[in-house]
Amino acid sequence: MEFKVNSKELEKLLTKIIPAVPTRTPMPILENFLFEIKNGLLTIYATDLEISLKSSINIVTEENISIVVPAKLLYDVIRSLGDTTVHFNITGNGKLSLTTDNGQYSLSYLDSTEFPEIPSFPDQNENEDLAEISIPGMDLKEALEKTSFAMSKEEMRPAMMGTLFEFGEDGLRFVSTDGHRLVNMLNKKITSGINNQYIVPEKAISVLLKILDEKDVKLYMSKTHISFKLNDIELITRLIGQKYPDYKSVIPLENEFELKLKTKDLHNAIKRMMLFSTSNTRRVKFSIKENNLEISAEDLDIGASGKENVVCTYSGDSIDIGFNSAYVNDILSHLVNLKEIIFKLHSPTKAVVIVPDEKDENIDLMMLIMPVRLNN
Amino acid sequence: MEFKVNSKELEKLLTKIIPAVPTRTPMPILENFLFEIKNGLLTIYATDLEISLKSSINIVTEENISIVVPAKLLYDVIRSLGDTTVHFNITGNGKLSLTTDNGQYSLSYLDSTEFPEIPSFPDQNENEDLAEISIPGMDLKEALEKTSFAMSKEEMRPAMMGTLFEFGEDGLRFVSTDGHRLVNMLNKKITSGINNQYIVPEKAISVLLKILDEKDVKLYMSKTHISFKLNDIELITRLIGQKYPDYKSVIPLENEFELKLKTKDLHNAIKRMMLFSTSNTRRVKFSIKENNLEISAEDLDIGASGKENVVCTYSGDSIDIGFNSAYVNDILSHLVNLKEIIFKLHSPTKAVVIVPDEKDENIDLMMLIMPVRLNN
Repeated sequence: MEFKVNSKELEKLLTKIIPAVPTRTPMPILENFLFEIKNGLLTIYATDLEISLKSSINIVTEENISIVVPAKLLYDVIRSLGDTTVHFNITGNGKLSLTTDNGQYSLSYLDSTEFPEIPSFPDQNENEDLAEISIPGMDLKEALEKTSFAMSKEEMRPAMMGTLFEFGEDGLRFVSTDGHRLVNMLNKKITSGINNQYIVPEKAISVLLKILDEKDVKLYMSKTHISFKLNDIELITRLIGQKYPDYKSVIPLENEFELKLKTKDLHNAIKRMMLFSTSNTRRVKFSIKENNLEISAEDLDIGASGKENVVCTYSGDSIDIGFNSAYVNDILSHLVNLKEIIFKLHSPTKAVVIVPDEKDENIDLMMLIMPVRLNN
Repeated sequence: MEFKVNSKELEKLLTKIIPAVPTRTPMPILENFLFEIKNGLLTIYATDLEISLKSSINIVTEENISIVVPAKLLYDVIRSLGDTTVHFNITGNGKLSLTTDNGQYSLSYLDSTEFPEIPSFPDQNENEDLAEISIPGMDLKEALEKTSFAMSKEEMRPAMMGTLFEFGEDGLRFVSTDGHRLVNMLNKKITSGINNQYIVPEKAISVLLKILDEKDVKLYMSKTHISFKLNDIELITRLIGQKYPDYKSVIPLENEFELKLKTKDLHNAIKRMMLFSTSNTRRVKFSIKENNLEISAEDLDIGASGKENVVCTYSGDSIDIGFNSAYVNDILSHLVNLKEIIFKLHSPTKAVVIVPDEKDENIDLMMLIMPVRLNN
């Protein structure tokens, strides 16, 4: 069978799908795209068994066929062609031939029966209850940008290796934590009849951050999977089938001392202090008393130290408290669009809450960081 | 002792010197800058024992002192400061203190006696004959850009791990080769009384490519070292003390078949063929007959192949000749500023010469590539 397609259009489509192709896998079949041609629609799929991506393009052909094609080779060839018409010819002997004005290229394909099955949403044949909701793409993107950095990388705690989507009466809440820091963001505009929690794994989050745009995205949720339907691409991912830790019990409510400062001032000072903090502990010390914050760090291994004063407003008890400077830096990197922030503290051993100084009527954002012990 | 310096000026200077600081070395002293303060001039040195870089800045101070300072830490701290005045204070107890408006930082320094000695050019105390010449920086830069890629990376052939600078009556010639390809570029404008060969090692070439600009550069050459004095920085490198292979004997003189084509057309075709060439041989086949060039490649391991026709002018005997596509690609990448090039061939087993179609009265440029055997 034959069809033709513009190389630039196909490249655009493959660029979106290829993030789901694993670079290293014990299952070589996953290194392929699935090409499904049905009623004049070419749908291309890729999956690493956790996430799958699919997108379609209209072609002119009478026949229906499914084949699997080496993903990286096809992608590299199409990208190298410039803007031209590519004639695809799928022959019966396992060869896929591509012809342009200047050249002819031949690739091997395999039968599609070996390719893993990919769930489809919504599936009319299933009786399972599907939850569904439509969200502005930028709202979802902003929430994931703010929260996803705090996800755990430790396989010992699988639930924390994803971001929690918690649908409730007050809105859609996003939570991520690795036990050292936690981000909790509630978008009050996104209300639904849904009352449920879903944990979306890291790989899906990182692909979503690349493909989300200002258009709406439609979410379908089953017990095991979540589908994100964008304008021209669909991402389906397995959910992490674990109970998310009770994050609410970690958040202190009565931290009465408030330290207010300019986000950028503190961020710049922390970046310098990271250079002087011992490489294994990365510890930085905040010495706070009446309207004065001194930040200091020392690296005993190399005999270096630094201290700085940061302008602030503070009216609580004097306090010396230690943090992992890399975690403080991570948090501040995700708050740089806020001019001023407030650290809410209680004691050198209790979790510290960081919130924006200016409230947003639609978004509740809260970050939390655990202090580390000072050696004196 | 104390002095002060603007952070941005110091950053600019350190940025130039730090390429000579080795990232991994069995000699930790080399991970430092040497600070030499003499008669109000601060000169900063770094070396990896092969190359050394030095640059100076005027400061106001009465004392003279030499210390060595952790290079990466100092560089990172200075870079992080923004635009500000930094007060340096070198105390007797091995501590270097930096003070700005907001902060204070302390680093350990060592005595300079442990730092390796760096040759100086011209050195009045030496009786050795020094050759010297001044060259426009851009002439040197262009020559190194065109030739250096062909240097060998194999430690078995130390002479070929550098670029040959051959001074003669006809000009300054640059040669590099790894045995598979060779670049030979003569700049006829650069004449001198010098009649000698110098092999400059790869590390020095790569640093030169970063620091050379449109200003003149002064070269001093001893038997063992070469110094490149730029406006505000000096690079000194050891020479490779080996005999350079007799490159002239490799260059065929009587290749009578000329294949003329557009550099860009061939380059694009080769990039596509690289995708289809077997990964260990990277072989691509040129089938040339009367005004027609067909390029083809196949990867038997994955069952893929490609072929393209490239518009050309050719009037020699029909010939099938094989090349390593990666080497052809390297060569073409360094000729892309030329609209048309000529391949001069003789037979499938003899070295092929590639020259620009348009002659330049000041520059003779020639590249050479060895063919590989075809299996048929």
